Amino acid sequence: RRQCLSTLGQAAAALTAGPLLVGGAGAQRPPNVVLILSDDQGSTDLGCYGATNLHTPNLDGLAGDGLRFTQFYVNAPACMPSRSALMTGRHFVRSLSSDGMSGDEVTIAEMLKGAGYRTGCFGKWHLGHPESMEPLAQGFDEFLGFKVGAMDNYSHFFYYGGPNRHVLRRNLEPYREDGVYFPDIVAREAERFIDDNQASPFFLYLPLNQPHYPLQPEARFLDRYQGVADVARRYQMASLTSMDERIGRVLRRLDDRGLRQDTIVLFLSDHGHSREERTFGGGGRSTPFTGHKGTLREGGIRVPCLLSAPGRVPSSQVRDQAVTSLDLLPTIAHMTGAALPSRELDGASLAGVLASAGAPSPHGQLHWVYDKSWAVLEGNWKILGDVSDDSLALYNLAQDPAERHNVASSNKEIATYLIGRHNEWIRSIKKEASSKAFVSP
Amino acid sequence: RRQCLSTLGQAAAALTAGPLLVGGAGAQRPPNVVLILSDDQGSTDLGCYGATNLHTPNLDGLAGDGLRFTQFYVNAPACMPSRSALMTGRHFVRSLSSDGMSGDEVTIAEMLKGAGYRTGCFGKWHLGHPESMEPLAQGFDEFLGFKVGAMDNYSHFFYYGGPNRHVLRRNLEPYREDGVYFPDIVAREAERFIDDNQASPFFLYLPLNQPHYPLQPEARFLDRYQGVADVARRYQMASLTSMDERIGRVLRRLDDRGLRQDTIVLFLSDHGHSREERTFGGGGRSTPFTGHKGTLREGGIRVPCLLSAPGRVPSSQVRDQAVTSLDLLPTIAHMTGAALPSRELDGASLAGVLASAGAPSPHGQLHWVYDKSWAVLEGNWKILGDVSDDSLALYNLAQDPAERHNVASSNKEIATYLIGRHNEWIRSIKKEASSKAFVSP
Repeated sequence: RRQCLSTLGQAAAALTAGPLLVGGAGAQRPPNVVLILSDDQGSTDLGCYGATNLHTPNLDGLAGDGLRFTQFYVNAPACMPSRSALMTGRHFVRSLSSDGMSGDEVTIAEMLKGAGYRTGCFGKWHLGHPESMEPLAQGFDEFLGFKVGAMDNYSHFFYYGGPNRHVLRRNLEPYREDGVYFPDIVAREAERFIDDNQASPFFLYLPLNQPHYPLQPEARFLDRYQGVADVARRYQMASLTSMDERIGRVLRRLDDRGLRQDTIVLFLSDHGHSREERTFGGGGRSTPFTGHKGTLREGGIRVPCLLSAPGRVPSSQVRDQAVTSLDLLPTIAHMTGAALPSRELDGASLAGVLASAGAPSPHGQLHWVYDKSWAVLEGNWKILGDVSDDSLALYNLAQDPAERHNVASSNKEIATYLIGRHNEWIRSIKKEASSKAFVSP
Repeated sequence: RRQCLSTLGQAAAALTAGPLLVGGAGAQRPPNVVLILSDDQGSTDLGCYGATNLHTPNLDGLAGDGLRFTQFYVNAPACMPSRSALMTGRHFVRSLSSDGMSGDEVTIAEMLKGAGYRTGCFGKWHLGHPESMEPLAQGFDEFLGFKVGAMDNYSHFFYYGGPNRHVLRRNLEPYREDGVYFPDIVAREAERFIDDNQASPFFLYLPLNQPHYPLQPEARFLDRYQGVADVARRYQMASLTSMDERIGRVLRRLDDRGLRQDTIVLFLSDHGHSREERTFGGGGRSTPFTGHKGTLREGGIRVPCLLSAPGRVPSSQVRDQAVTSLDLLPTIAHMTGAALPSRELDGASLAGVLASAGAPSPHGQLHWVYDKSWAVLEGNWKILGDVSDDSLALYNLAQDPAERHNVASSNKEIATYLIGRHNEWIRSIKKEASSKAFVSP
């Protein structure tokens, strides 16, 4: 066991996995898993996270049916690395190559397929174009969506590089449904997939493309927010409500088929909100955090996350433990009885955390790298480094969630300790890391 | 009268306007005018211009009903300056400011409105955003379309700079018809406008957005050309056939309302085809010419042009005279009896040319400037200059339509003469020219 902050006189970091209070798979049919990923949604941009006047009744309802996490992290503040880590339970520096998620990784879909699940992916893949990295090669029986980072929702064209082109695919083939709003296609396919697979356990992965640019919420949602003066915020709010409505369709279908008691529903964002010009400079909400997509500040990597599994986890509770999207694969394995992939994972089962607000996080430290930045979190302490100028900042998140007050100079021992942990982790992971992915994923 | 090539022993350039063989407006109701502008269509990219295997039955039929021009020029190889010249009969260096077409110019629409016409514009305006440059401020009673250079045909979003945003407008207001293919909206509005204005003379301006990028022909048209291996060419052909089908709808509506005998239908492209990456590098046809959008070679400025006016001009004839889009305003004035704007025009009535294949062009010389390039055409001689490196090339278009053989060194007198004409023209026009528009329109 490594040295930890408690040896420096700080509050003890919880390094041991909690007892398994959450039931594993028994003789009964294993639960379905519905994993919904939003795209570029701000850290706290949901009604149930305190966003004012934002109408997200279906996701707020999901929080009421289950658990809401307040310190849930993704592995990177960008689409591909975050998704690669989510799908594999392994840090993106291990699981992502320069082309996409490595074909020899074991995804949640492959893990569950091995346990007899039917698997479907509808939405934005964005984990690689080569055939070995296609959804169908990564454990999914079905795919409808696109593999690039963004797409026009009506023409299904890609505009952000190269020739303007149509990118919608069903499985491996081009698929045209010109003029139909993509979120409606995704919701319809999700409903159909649920209907088709009522008899068998299924894994439904819905990587939505809202509220990512292009921001194309329907007029009725823009009208709802016409009182919002800031155009960037108005489009973001309308996009989130539009997304929430489609999620409502999926949840309703589970209800209508009597499947909610047999289904784990997970919702999270792939990272923080965008500040790009394509989103009018960014109208996402991360209050009280700062930072956004592309940064390792809390607003880049801390995301809304909800988990509902009636009868399996408590309802209407909050979990404040620092946990991560790396934990979802092992947690799903635990809850479904699927066999864990036989390789080193960076995540750990959240069974204890799900069962109890008082259970410790399975993680002593959490580590991030992205582009030129790196970060380590242990307890309340977060250190943020930048290799381009060797700058360093130490924050106490409990006192300073906005990361405004660099207290490194008055806490040199802690900073030195965390730098040591970072260097140690880098050494441990570097043998597996794709240097290209490491530097600029 | 200026010196011309005939004084150098060349074939006499025809400088005098032909006799007015085409009937002007009499006591009867003046004819409707339908002006259809295609977008980035190649110089000879139509069935009736020899494009092989290209299905454009409606435009080919229009050529059969009227005149087909083989040496028809636009004023510039780019959208805004070409449109500004077309709309005003004045060279773009006079009529275009840095923001768009100057509000104090008199457009074809304003001219015809003064003669009691109802006026409608449906399609791509691209002549300025300020309110003084809106279609409604430039003589149109109605507008539905967009003012930027290109738009997604289904979402009606603009992607080529700034935040991704919805740009469809009806008159001055945002207009949403999400998911509906824009060429269908234009055709429908054109049909409705014709129906609404059967009782009065009307001017219907249809600046279509095909085959401009984004290339979004429907699957049925792509299927028609699935044997075409070159993807750029396939998309171009499918886009042209898609466009032709909508033009067919408009012509059919004129027929159905019994208006063809009372209607002048004009069709031309705004300039040559695009070689931009957004069109897969360009699949447009300009054979036998070279050059494309953005150049002053024939493939940039020579365009397909058809004019049908049953009972007013001959049918199924070809016109080989060198004429230009600047001539359309004065020609329309002549044919409708509308009063010409009281300002210096660069175009001249084509009444003589319309009546007779043997009539001379009204132009002794034609002049172009664009970005760093300039050109003068007189008779068969075309000189092409570039002020960035002072390069010069002289071509004999009769012998060398592809502009491959620079014969300046063996025809120094002609080159010197044409340089002189260019300098003279520059001096004459410069007092009116917006230098900004001149250099980089």
